[in-house]
Amino acid sequence: MRIIGIDPGSQRTGIGIVDVDAAGKLSHVFHAALMVADEETFTLRLKRIFDGIDEIIATHRPVECGIERVFMARNADSALKLGQARGAAICAVVHRGIAVHEYAATEVKKAVVGGGRSDKTQVQHMIGVLLGLKGPIQADAADALAIAVAHAHTRASLERVGIPRTAWRRRR
Amino acid sequence: MRIIGIDPGSQRTGIGIVDVDAAGKLSHVFHAALMVADEETFTLRLKRIFDGIDEIIATHRPVECGIERVFMARNADSALKLGQARGAAICAVVHRGIAVHEYAATEVKKAVVGGGRSDKTQVQHMIGVLLGLKGPIQADAADALAIAVAHAHTRASLERVGIPRTAWRRRR
Repeated sequence: MRIIGIDPGSQRTGIGIVDVDAAGKLSHVFHAALMVADEETFTLRLKRIFDGIDEIIATHRPVECGIERVFMARNADSALKLGQARGAAICAVVHRGIAVHEYAATEVKKAVVGGGRSDKTQVQHMIGVLLGLKGPIQADAADALAIAVAHAHTRASLERVGIPRTAWRRRR
Repeated sequence: MRIIGIDPGSQRTGIGIVDVDAAGKLSHVFHAALMVADEETFTLRLKRIFDGIDEIIATHRPVECGIERVFMARNADSALKLGQARGAAICAVVHRGIAVHEYAATEVKKAVVGGGRSDKTQVQHMIGVLLGLKGPIQADAADALAIAVAHAHTRASLERVGIPRTAWRRRR
């Protein structure tokens, strides 16, 4: 089962792909951060996010997607920018027929580090350890891998307790 | 020259298409409002917006797009929702290789009613008159037609004064 995790942003969008086998063993497939801040217009940033994710999906063929749920942005202006980036990312995924599952930041941290209050550096470090990566990983790419890992863990737990897949999709 | 105007929203997205000939004469092609509030998840709303616009573009083949510029949303939560809808709408357009031009609400109103401070009902009425439509038009669809008309007027003015097309795209 191949899972894509996405951490969208209007300047940098993290993308991470992992494989999880029937025993829950994880392996790293791909990670990257799409840097779009240098585009001439905001519309072109959204196009880069959409096209970038589309291309990565075409290459690596993930079958499920995890994305961080946003509870509250700092202010209306940054929320609008983040929202547009998130909309572009989600469309790139659903356009390919892949289901999107949302996870709160605390759920992601818990899945990776074991605690909901750990900081970004801990997540970066633990993702490297969990997936056997050498050297530092770009922060947004590490977050995206963490979201993919969180989804891998959650779907394994849900399958274990026999909750049907159709009930997985979370409301918001 | 066929122009699509879009008024994105997380509950209703207005879409309007007009033709403008070399003399600046406008004619109505299509309008609709995509009602997506009843979808089970927010992700499915975004998919409906993307797929809906994609289908309308495939059918009517507009070559340029106008969209309203958002200055400030009411609060961070509504900005995040609006942003995602806007991101989905813009991706559906740029995915088809169509350039997106942004217009402030005051520019749109000025193009249609002649004043930047006119209310929504005036815009709805004037769009009906300008395009020779009978009966009332749904408010978001009317706004979308108004944006398309604003772009038609603006591109005609820019062409008249000889500003090259490459300089039209607005920064934001």
